[in-house]
Amino acid sequence: MKKVYLDNTSTTAIVPEVRDAMLPFLGEYYGNPSCIHEWGDAPREALETAREQVAKLIGGAPEEIVFTGSGTESNNFAIKGLAMANQKKGKHIVVSAIEHFSVLNSCKTLEKMGFKYTTVPVNEFGTVNPEDVRKAIREDTILVSVMHANNEVGTIQPIKEISKITKEKGIVFHTDAVATAGTIPVNAADLGVDALSLAGNMFYGPKGVGVLWVKKGVRILPLLDGGVQEGGRRAGTENVAGIVGLGKAAELALSQMPARIKKVTELRDYLLQSLPAKVQHVVVTGHLTQRLPGHASFCVEFIEGESMLMLLNSQGVAVTSGSACTSRALLASHVLLAMGLPHEIAQSSLLFGLSIQNTKEDIDYVLEVMPPIVERLRQMSPLWAKYIKQNKGA
Amino acid sequence: MKKVYLDNTSTTAIVPEVRDAMLPFLGEYYGNPSCIHEWGDAPREALETAREQVAKLIGGAPEEIVFTGSGTESNNFAIKGLAMANQKKGKHIVVSAIEHFSVLNSCKTLEKMGFKYTTVPVNEFGTVNPEDVRKAIREDTILVSVMHANNEVGTIQPIKEISKITKEKGIVFHTDAVATAGTIPVNAADLGVDALSLAGNMFYGPKGVGVLWVKKGVRILPLLDGGVQEGGRRAGTENVAGIVGLGKAAELALSQMPARIKKVTELRDYLLQSLPAKVQHVVVTGHLTQRLPGHASFCVEFIEGESMLMLLNSQGVAVTSGSACTSRALLASHVLLAMGLPHEIAQSSLLFGLSIQNTKEDIDYVLEVMPPIVERLRQMSPLWAKYIKQNKGA
Repeated sequence: MKKVYLDNTSTTAIVPEVRDAMLPFLGEYYGNPSCIHEWGDAPREALETAREQVAKLIGGAPEEIVFTGSGTESNNFAIKGLAMANQKKGKHIVVSAIEHFSVLNSCKTLEKMGFKYTTVPVNEFGTVNPEDVRKAIREDTILVSVMHANNEVGTIQPIKEISKITKEKGIVFHTDAVATAGTIPVNAADLGVDALSLAGNMFYGPKGVGVLWVKKGVRILPLLDGGVQEGGRRAGTENVAGIVGLGKAAELALSQMPARIKKVTELRDYLLQSLPAKVQHVVVTGHLTQRLPGHASFCVEFIEGESMLMLLNSQGVAVTSGSACTSRALLASHVLLAMGLPHEIAQSSLLFGLSIQNTKEDIDYVLEVMPPIVERLRQMSPLWAKYIKQNKGA
Repeated sequence: MKKVYLDNTSTTAIVPEVRDAMLPFLGEYYGNPSCIHEWGDAPREALETAREQVAKLIGGAPEEIVFTGSGTESNNFAIKGLAMANQKKGKHIVVSAIEHFSVLNSCKTLEKMGFKYTTVPVNEFGTVNPEDVRKAIREDTILVSVMHANNEVGTIQPIKEISKITKEKGIVFHTDAVATAGTIPVNAADLGVDALSLAGNMFYGPKGVGVLWVKKGVRILPLLDGGVQEGGRRAGTENVAGIVGLGKAAELALSQMPARIKKVTELRDYLLQSLPAKVQHVVVTGHLTQRLPGHASFCVEFIEGESMLMLLNSQGVAVTSGSACTSRALLASHVLLAMGLPHEIAQSSLLFGLSIQNTKEDIDYVLEVMPPIVERLRQMSPLWAKYIKQNKGA
């Protein structure tokens, strides 16, 4: 059977160049980068090279890069570390309603410690209105966090417009760029943010490594206390091989970005146009133009998304219904609910993450196997039966 | 020039079997373990195998294993997560004075949040007296943390005796077993602890992955909020390759433990006996019998440890003067100071971490190059000049 992996928002595959860059650090160059003897030299130099590669990708300085263990850790570090460092000024945080759970749940943890947070709504395309951020800001607001693009619906947020407001008010602004960094051009200075999270496995790098970029001069408290690694901002022996892989992935992302974007955008547009034409009652979710290049998301009305994933899997197709981090929690997406979709439609979500390894044949295969799967599921769906009955009656 | 790596307390080299186990998860099996399609199957099954391998190594149950990004993260998670989960009962913590900075600095962070902590002293061998732990426990003590063995002086602590006291008092007991797990037999139930930290790179596994074992029924709050990975105890996409490597390293450590212990103990004893015989004014630090098998530490009086490391490095020998996590901070070891050593002697610390890859020839080489290095450094040392003068006068 044909195998088609279209779940690149959950994780991409490591490209061979990245893997090859990592291997010496799982072998010959095993030293601890903190050591002052020569076994520490190659690992330490490799960390600094990776730091430069990542800095270049997002338009930062190498010393502003803090390596972490994941995008989730970067977001926890940002929200908790920036809040704790600024708590003397106030204890209020503003976030969007569609942030990743690593941001939202960090706010909940801070809430137990006396902080408050306000969630800003989004419109039906999943876009935050900068003026809503302005309205949510209070006298005691110390931190705003709005993601650069949403992983579930692909909508790119007006970060630059929001940062004008936070700058005006003198409030620290963090953006979760896990879905964008390495995928579309991301320039921290241009966006006007103070901190930015990214993760290597979103752009053909390894799992288990992320970055928090923290603008020079912005105070942050560590999440991981201990030794003096990462300039005292993140303790713990460094995941050298992972960091080297992330650095290489960043370098490739930067040099190949135009070609990569062109390729996945073509595939995306083909899928966004063809699937609703092939299967009735399929609705695109998210923004049509302010959208990640390799991201196509839909609601397939009158069916349940989970069963659709299973049947697509049985045909060799990997997709998801939302964030991988919560797919095993089986909840309706908080993102789709925040966009105003009713519960039963939010549960019929289908999300394609396209990669540079995908081809038009992959999309054609999906377009071929989808109609009978949807047909079969609708035959079993009480919602569909109800709809048909009502329509006949009309 | 001969190259001799004797800095295995900073990190060990990955053995080929571990590396081979990891490689498929940096290639073919790239799926996200949280995904419900088949690309998630192999990574998810691999995580569960690793969980069983680690559980077996420390006598726990697989569901009690939480994978983290390092020993440092495990210690932060333990101290902060156990303290936060128990704060309604009290806000006092007891730790030993010679804990790793990931434990001590976590206590300092909690102190800023209203917690208090007491440090229990050690004797001249670096051993904690269980009765001192009993004395330090107050009405509001909710957590005790004493490391299983100290990484700088190799002393193994009487954890079993301490756990009798914590059990009697009904207090949660954590041990940092980063220096022992995978190196000597560690059985969590036998030790009587409630939580235990370990790190893969201490026993021929990869960097960037650790474990916190948390006994069933013991409440802990996450350090990393977000998705539902690791049973909701540690969010973030899993470092699959790293975890697989750690699991394999645990399996090998368990099956090869008697042979490994025999080998490094012989080398250690040879070094512990020969170096003081070869070079005058060399004193063994730590306990002579209650000691890690591959661990030999000394103070080389009347010289400065840092320069000694540099000269040994120039002869191809890798050693350290203390914890790799703080070696770039250039401070006298808090461990040696806690053992009552004067500042100038604590600064002459020399630490050998022996591995299964070392040979008697490696030790002989060290014994050959050490005397001229020490001689040269003492010629330049004002402390040595003062000592010689005083001795002549006497």
